[in-house]
Amino acid sequence: MEAIRGRIAGRKLVAGSRLPSVRVQAQTMGVSVSTVVEAYDRLVAEGVIRSHPGAGFYVSGSPAPLSLAEVAPKRARSVDPLWISRQSLEARQGTLMPGCGWLPSSWMFEAGIRRALRTLARGESADLVDYGSPLGFEALRQILSRRLLTYGVEAPAGQILLTESGTQAIDLVCRLLLEPGDTVLVDDPCYFNFHALLKAHRAKAVGVPYTPAGPDLDAFAAALRDHAPRLYITNSAIHNPTGAVLSPAIAHQLLKLAEAADIVIVEDDIFADFEDVPAPRLAAFDGLARVIQIGSFSKALSAAVRCGYIAARPDWIDNLADLKIATSFGGGRLASEILASALTDGSYRRHMEAVRWRLADAREKVIRRLAPLGIEPWMRPPAGMFLWCRLPGEQDAADLARACLEHGVILAPGNAFSLSQSARSFLRFNVAQCDDERVFQVLGMVL
Amino acid sequence: MEAIRGRIAGRKLVAGSRLPSVRVQAQTMGVSVSTVVEAYDRLVAEGVIRSHPGAGFYVSGSPAPLSLAEVAPKRARSVDPLWISRQSLEARQGTLMPGCGWLPSSWMFEAGIRRALRTLARGESADLVDYGSPLGFEALRQILSRRLLTYGVEAPAGQILLTESGTQAIDLVCRLLLEPGDTVLVDDPCYFNFHALLKAHRAKAVGVPYTPAGPDLDAFAAALRDHAPRLYITNSAIHNPTGAVLSPAIAHQLLKLAEAADIVIVEDDIFADFEDVPAPRLAAFDGLARVIQIGSFSKALSAAVRCGYIAARPDWIDNLADLKIATSFGGGRLASEILASALTDGSYRRHMEAVRWRLADAREKVIRRLAPLGIEPWMRPPAGMFLWCRLPGEQDAADLARACLEHGVILAPGNAFSLSQSARSFLRFNVAQCDDERVFQVLGMVL
Repeated sequence: MEAIRGRIAGRKLVAGSRLPSVRVQAQTMGVSVSTVVEAYDRLVAEGVIRSHPGAGFYVSGSPAPLSLAEVAPKRARSVDPLWISRQSLEARQGTLMPGCGWLPSSWMFEAGIRRALRTLARGESADLVDYGSPLGFEALRQILSRRLLTYGVEAPAGQILLTESGTQAIDLVCRLLLEPGDTVLVDDPCYFNFHALLKAHRAKAVGVPYTPAGPDLDAFAAALRDHAPRLYITNSAIHNPTGAVLSPAIAHQLLKLAEAADIVIVEDDIFADFEDVPAPRLAAFDGLARVIQIGSFSKALSAAVRCGYIAARPDWIDNLADLKIATSFGGGRLASEILASALTDGSYRRHMEAVRWRLADAREKVIRRLAPLGIEPWMRPPAGMFLWCRLPGEQDAADLARACLEHGVILAPGNAFSLSQSARSFLRFNVAQCDDERVFQVLGMVL
Repeated sequence: MEAIRGRIAGRKLVAGSRLPSVRVQAQTMGVSVSTVVEAYDRLVAEGVIRSHPGAGFYVSGSPAPLSLAEVAPKRARSVDPLWISRQSLEARQGTLMPGCGWLPSSWMFEAGIRRALRTLARGESADLVDYGSPLGFEALRQILSRRLLTYGVEAPAGQILLTESGTQAIDLVCRLLLEPGDTVLVDDPCYFNFHALLKAHRAKAVGVPYTPAGPDLDAFAAALRDHAPRLYITNSAIHNPTGAVLSPAIAHQLLKLAEAADIVIVEDDIFADFEDVPAPRLAAFDGLARVIQIGSFSKALSAAVRCGYIAARPDWIDNLADLKIATSFGGGRLASEILASALTDGSYRRHMEAVRWRLADAREKVIRRLAPLGIEPWMRPPAGMFLWCRLPGEQDAADLARACLEHGVILAPGNAFSLSQSARSFLRFNVAQCDDERVFQVLGMVL
């Protein structure tokens, strides 16, 4: 009690701050959990701190007009497109996250990032205090230009704009090309954040059913005819959430349809480094005429070092650079220097090779562990971290997700990915996040 | 010639890449400038590279549908709100930038940033690969909460959202509160990027004349009546571009008017650390009810480490966090760890004290050097890097800016800051960027 009071008096903890969890506090102070529970309870009784059930303890005394409970994790909120993101981003240590969209930190290229930081801290050349140029750090754009060429995408450095993230890359493209009320085609299912992003742009999203080889072309053609969309946003390499890969035949037909309807395609390529064999890229087939490719390294290198890119026609890049300045000013020069350093670190290639092997192994293992529960994969993806799975007996995945959350397991229910809400009995599993028996125990218990 | 050809063959330089400048290339290879000029000329003749006058040399051979000249700095483009930003961000070494909006890198806290990088590279605690939490790194939000309190702004850490930059902070607020077609009040003059940002939101900006003590209250009241705005965006501490400071009396009246008209005020506080004596903060008077405060450390600490913040009502913070996830996903955890480390580095306070003294000195010096040219400050700002100055004889500052650019001097012409285009004969000077006699020589020559 004295320690907490002291921290509040010294303004190390201010009104509204969350206190360390009981467990962490007990460890830190070398006392038992029950001692901390008692101390916290007494402080609650004194009104020094407040308890928000399920969300921890907070310092009282804020003169804020609204309750701070508002910003605590909304466990009861509806399972909307942002539900999975917030649950995963807010997860406390010890929470299991088979539904989350990224690798555990132990799988990431932390050693490489640390090396890059050391190099930057030592070096005299890196500029640690200045804004980046409008397009972003040239050395990184050169590296990206060479990388893209290995996928057949010809994008000189002048046609590449660095952004703060892959999400910001798509956001800038939407700002450039969409008017409020425009229609945008997305895959059904697709990455749930596309729905939230398009809503933020007041665009109307229309879903096109996805097959194991790409979008359903008849449905795509019908959507072009019926909705006169402006954009189509998709992943070609490793589709999120299904893990499907675009076939060359569908890529070719898709581009012909897009040309005839004069729409722009945004190809989100953030899983490129997870492929064993490169899938066809729409940006390569099309020569960056009506395809815009975006990407980032949050999934493979580090999600803490924010940097994405847009490869597009020069006139669009120029306008996108203006929009970037207007809405987020100069880019994060430091992040791009770190990434340039890490990407040219010879061990990155080996690191990703190991990650790909590990994922292949984990995909098989998770399929085997889910089988006895009656949970079956929609397809066996050739690469990546995702398995798109169907629950037995048409169960409601959102109900299951809410029940599992009570046991500290965050799932990704299918309808969060589906505009038509036709994925009620599906779940997206991240196999890299399933390396704990409790995932399957909790599923078995709740199913 | 062989060196360039080799780099192109090895794809170290790809189609569209800019070659090193003649001077840099000569230094790198230890040959004379005229040798490089001749080699470049011959490569142009062979069609291997192309020359864009004023913008350097580029590798040819791109199959891109549009000319790359499009992405070279647009020296001839109209002096629109983005002109100064792009000129300054694209400036080559040796360019003088009295018009730019930030300090020279030698004035920044580079030693502190380098120390923070080293600490992070060593430490085991920092998470270098994971996403940040939805609100951002808690330790930094605690630091910001304590800082804000010194200005009388009570914002617990739960009411602070970290963003990628100050600009992104305003952008998120606009996304939350504006519908296309809404009206927003800005100061006239104001930071020119507000115009570009509001245009990106399809909002209508209306200017309120700024006086040396804040906005003109009669004009403000009239604008509320005539335009039914939704927002007012302003700087209270050190106004950009004038250096003016809000008086307590105007702050109080302004808030009363805002309350009566039920509008929201965005207080952009990015120059806080440049003040000797804290100015009144609207966010403090109002208790974060209808005032949203935003800020960043790009001006004082480092522009390469991108991180801004929003302090606002808890319900708004919650919605803003959703919007941040939808449009740029997790925050830059690395940047916030570096800033937390640098801000708690004891030498930061001393560093800024020295910067403030140096700026006070530079303001006097620049006023003295401009006087013989007939250029006079509109007011003597008590702090900050800006002087808002009037040209003699009602000269057109945009013409002057274009002429000075030919001599490698980037100016900030007044009408870029003025919605009413009533600042035709004004220039904003950044006194920290005027420590070179050539600034005044070129001005004297061109005037």
